[in-house]
Amino acid sequence: MKNLILLIIVVIMSSIVAAQPPRAPQVEPLPEGFKPASTNTFISQYPAVNAKTRQAMFRVVAPEAQKVQLQLSGTHDMKKDEKGVWWITTEPLVVGFHYYAILVDGVAVMDRGSESYFGSNWESAAIEIPEGPEGDYYRFNKNIAHGQIRSIDYWSDINGKERHINVYVPAEYESNPNKRYPVLYLVHGWGEDENGWSIQGHMANIMDGLIAAGQAVPMIVVMPSGDIKTNSDVREASGDVTDIFAKNLVPFIDKTFRTKTDKQNRAMAGLSRGGFQTCITVSKNMDQFGWMGTFSGLFVRGDDGIENAFNGMFKDPTAFNKQMKLFFVSTGTEERSPKELVETLKNKGVNNIVYHESQGTAHEWLTWRRALYDFAPRLFK
Amino acid sequence: MKNLILLIIVVIMSSIVAAQPPRAPQVEPLPEGFKPASTNTFISQYPAVNAKTRQAMFRVVAPEAQKVQLQLSGTHDMKKDEKGVWWITTEPLVVGFHYYAILVDGVAVMDRGSESYFGSNWESAAIEIPEGPEGDYYRFNKNIAHGQIRSIDYWSDINGKERHINVYVPAEYESNPNKRYPVLYLVHGWGEDENGWSIQGHMANIMDGLIAAGQAVPMIVVMPSGDIKTNSDVREASGDVTDIFAKNLVPFIDKTFRTKTDKQNRAMAGLSRGGFQTCITVSKNMDQFGWMGTFSGLFVRGDDGIENAFNGMFKDPTAFNKQMKLFFVSTGTEERSPKELVETLKNKGVNNIVYHESQGTAHEWLTWRRALYDFAPRLFK
Repeated sequence: MKNLILLIIVVIMSSIVAAQPPRAPQVEPLPEGFKPASTNTFISQYPAVNAKTRQAMFRVVAPEAQKVQLQLSGTHDMKKDEKGVWWITTEPLVVGFHYYAILVDGVAVMDRGSESYFGSNWESAAIEIPEGPEGDYYRFNKNIAHGQIRSIDYWSDINGKERHINVYVPAEYESNPNKRYPVLYLVHGWGEDENGWSIQGHMANIMDGLIAAGQAVPMIVVMPSGDIKTNSDVREASGDVTDIFAKNLVPFIDKTFRTKTDKQNRAMAGLSRGGFQTCITVSKNMDQFGWMGTFSGLFVRGDDGIENAFNGMFKDPTAFNKQMKLFFVSTGTEERSPKELVETLKNKGVNNIVYHESQGTAHEWLTWRRALYDFAPRLFK
Repeated sequence: MKNLILLIIVVIMSSIVAAQPPRAPQVEPLPEGFKPASTNTFISQYPAVNAKTRQAMFRVVAPEAQKVQLQLSGTHDMKKDEKGVWWITTEPLVVGFHYYAILVDGVAVMDRGSESYFGSNWESAAIEIPEGPEGDYYRFNKNIAHGQIRSIDYWSDINGKERHINVYVPAEYESNPNKRYPVLYLVHGWGEDENGWSIQGHMANIMDGLIAAGQAVPMIVVMPSGDIKTNSDVREASGDVTDIFAKNLVPFIDKTFRTKTDKQNRAMAGLSRGGFQTCITVSKNMDQFGWMGTFSGLFVRGDDGIENAFNGMFKDPTAFNKQMKLFFVSTGTEERSPKELVETLKNKGVNNIVYHESQGTAHEWLTWRRALYDFAPRLFK
């Protein structure tokens, strides 16, 4: 009987793992000062981070490979030890969230010690170089009340397909069944998806903290996809995503949640391409949105200049100032600055701009967490 | 000005993609009868599936690699064409959800044409070989009302860390602010995580359909992690996950949601290892749970036999029959059968067992979707 039972367990376990060998937690001790990255799967010790020196160590088991490289701020050769394990320790890195890849004989693959994060339109490895206590605003705080992120599929006739959204509701939403809330629509950037803000951005921790401290008004935050996803049966995307936002998504949200539906209680913001999409969406629907933000995303296409961009939204600054309570523009100091465009608009008479800079960060999620942290308290007041 | 604007766009876009080249949708036409797998990222044409022949085609760009293989029901060599692209078309596959890996010079990597699915404790590629209309019960139905899956972190003092759960609430939950609901706790298996039931299992579509058709009672479904995740600052897990379920999770759910809190309105089920964890949890808390299910998960450890397993829960069949309204046991016909254990229990006098078989499927998600579809309508009646 004992053997039979063991056999059953072995059969069950081995059929679960299917094509892949079972893997136990890695238990070798890490070098002094290094800890598993917070972005790892829960059983992975590598990549490991030294919070003090901001160095990261990477490890790849690839005894048969000819060449293994790390792609992270450039491409770096890893070194093979006598067991066929490849290693590299980086130079000090900038704090924040960084995508990276491993090149195995020239093929860019995801390091499976990392959780996967959707970036560049595929599943990527990433590593967080932690901040000190100044990063507490985006970490889980067990001493405050927590909102929920709701995962919902809704039908879009423009897309011809169900679309997935995440919707943050504040902690108090459940216990106030008759109260209505303002809504912020918050869009990710190119190559990421509707999970970016909740996973890479830790937006729930940021909003929970701001609301618990009384700094932000309790609000609903809707995080849609900024892409028109194809249907494998059709395999062609049609429509305009900004129309999906205004014509399919907003009505669905107002039907499904206890929202305030006037424009003074509806804001939109996005990062990078999502900031661009925000400007397009708002400019086409000025009667629907009263607040807007673009994080690392103020740029224009074509040669018309910012004055004429976005369906001429800025052509009449007086009208724009009246229509829009806030136009929030942010950037990291280590990326291309939108300052010149902001100055142009200010000189033209746009006077509702708040300009925010994240010190020492580039085009990545630490910049955008800081932008949200500065932006959200300004809304709906 | 035009050049400056283009430069800005280029700088922004190239800093987004960081280490990885930008990738446009693949647009080569697929061979006759093949379509992109439903499990792909939205821009990936490969892997492609022929729904009629149930064959799959895989494609890997790896001009510098010496050997590329597919791991899916065994290991199969792929063939390189003159452009350095490796190809394979499989034999007909079994319908359902299959994890797979690509071996690049011996390293098992995730095919980045696929979405990532957490399996075997790391991020895996997978391919769904579609069923015909008989699979509609787990597909999105735009003509019915939809529940929500809520993503929540709660604090566990046993784990010493926040823990992530997904909680399904039925469509009507929002519009009945005074109604209370029964709760099903639903656990994933070894190597997967708390997202397994909602992503790989399509549980929301299954529950939405059953509830809309009046076949299942509207209920809350709580999907926790079956692992005690470590904290990178501590790097050692402690505690017993079944205690986390009973002592941290159940009270949190009853505090946070409008639940019915008596045992007749609390069920627990799990698949594979999650079925085992269900039997342990329920046996230690018979006053808390009135219904239980184990999908591909009825097995015992040690040499005591089923009669003595699970804290002696089956030792007094009369008492067990009285305590438990339902003991649901299921399996796929192509995996190790728990029939012998079920017969032993029945012969001993356990008379609340429902035994369910999924025809032609193995230890994978199609088996478990079918199990949930059969199990959920039996609850709380």
